[in-house]
Amino acid sequence: MNVAFVLYDQMTALDMIGPYEVLAGHPQVMPHFVAARAGGVRCDNGLTLQADVGFDEMPAPELIVVPGSSHWRRALDDEPLIAWLAATCPTAGCTVSVCSGSTLLAKAGILAGRPATTHWAVREVLAAYGAIVSTERVVVDKDVITCAGVSAGIDMALTLAARLWGESTAKAIQLALEYDPRPPFDCGSPDKAPPEIVAAVRTLLTGA
Amino acid sequence: MNVAFVLYDQMTALDMIGPYEVLAGHPQVMPHFVAARAGGVRCDNGLTLQADVGFDEMPAPELIVVPGSSHWRRALDDEPLIAWLAATCPTAGCTVSVCSGSTLLAKAGILAGRPATTHWAVREVLAAYGAIVSTERVVVDKDVITCAGVSAGIDMALTLAARLWGESTAKAIQLALEYDPRPPFDCGSPDKAPPEIVAAVRTLLTGA
Repeated sequence: MNVAFVLYDQMTALDMIGPYEVLAGHPQVMPHFVAARAGGVRCDNGLTLQADVGFDEMPAPELIVVPGSSHWRRALDDEPLIAWLAATCPTAGCTVSVCSGSTLLAKAGILAGRPATTHWAVREVLAAYGAIVSTERVVVDKDVITCAGVSAGIDMALTLAARLWGESTAKAIQLALEYDPRPPFDCGSPDKAPPEIVAAVRTLLTGA
Repeated sequence: MNVAFVLYDQMTALDMIGPYEVLAGHPQVMPHFVAARAGGVRCDNGLTLQADVGFDEMPAPELIVVPGSSHWRRALDDEPLIAWLAATCPTAGCTVSVCSGSTLLAKAGILAGRPATTHWAVREVLAAYGAIVSTERVVVDKDVITCAGVSAGIDMALTLAARLWGESTAKAIQLALEYDPRPPFDCGSPDKAPPEIVAAVRTLLTGA
């Protein structure tokens, strides 16, 4: 299956690399790293990823993986990106997003009236585009799967792997990635973190 | 602080991207993506990352981040990589590895007689280089921190962030990454996975 890993300027690398590491090693997957144009794409913390193909060269994908960005407002103004998602996602077998990637899908008209989720700090943005915003970590709605911020892409992709290839394969991938998480703190969601930390991170990510 | 994120052919992207996403956004961090030569470095599942500097151009790092590879045997034969680690790690303030990255540190002579860990499937390899192999997910030994496979780099880097910048900052980073993991299965370590899946993954990663 052709899988389009979508790259764009100032994206968050881990949003894409989580699902990539879960999915791209499977023998049925032909990964494509696609952006508006082939070439280097600089991520929001400074790393450059290589886009191998431009949107116009990408074979019809069976799966599209859309990362988010800490500069999500700027990404929402990326017209070639939004236009490509609007044109391509409806005929792909499955579209998945991580973090604020779902706001791009929403702007592309794909989530109106549908259950979806996103990074906790931008739930209002997603709601403003007409999605029915969930606080679940992974939301499956037919051919669209959305998930929470950044690291949630790993959980989402393992869920997808189980749907695509069965539970045994997904478990083998989880074991290969030694995904037996031991976060040093219990503050990975706004329900659990101290309010002053929630407020500081919200301001950092939204200016609010 | 100058942080060297070490890249090499056939590395595992998530090994590096986990710590990168935790650490590189901090205002004190100046990230450098360093390889034997500047240019594209192809990862083991097909993604190309950009090395911005060659080993000979890298400013003295205060922190070195060493990823692993599913082609770990080939990486152990990468002489420029091993030589750079042997020369640079002893004078860096801190060296951290993810997954089989610790076998590279061991080959570079840095782990002899020291506690360390690695991906569960290559513990014997690490032991053969004289490290005292632990089954802990994150092992801190003075200026060297090693951790388990692939996804463990996130846990390790949050532990490091707390040491560098305090618990509040580490908690804010964890919340920004929405790192509140919900693996769909409880099989991320060999103690928990079904024996036939452990055997299959071990064969895939080691040929044994």
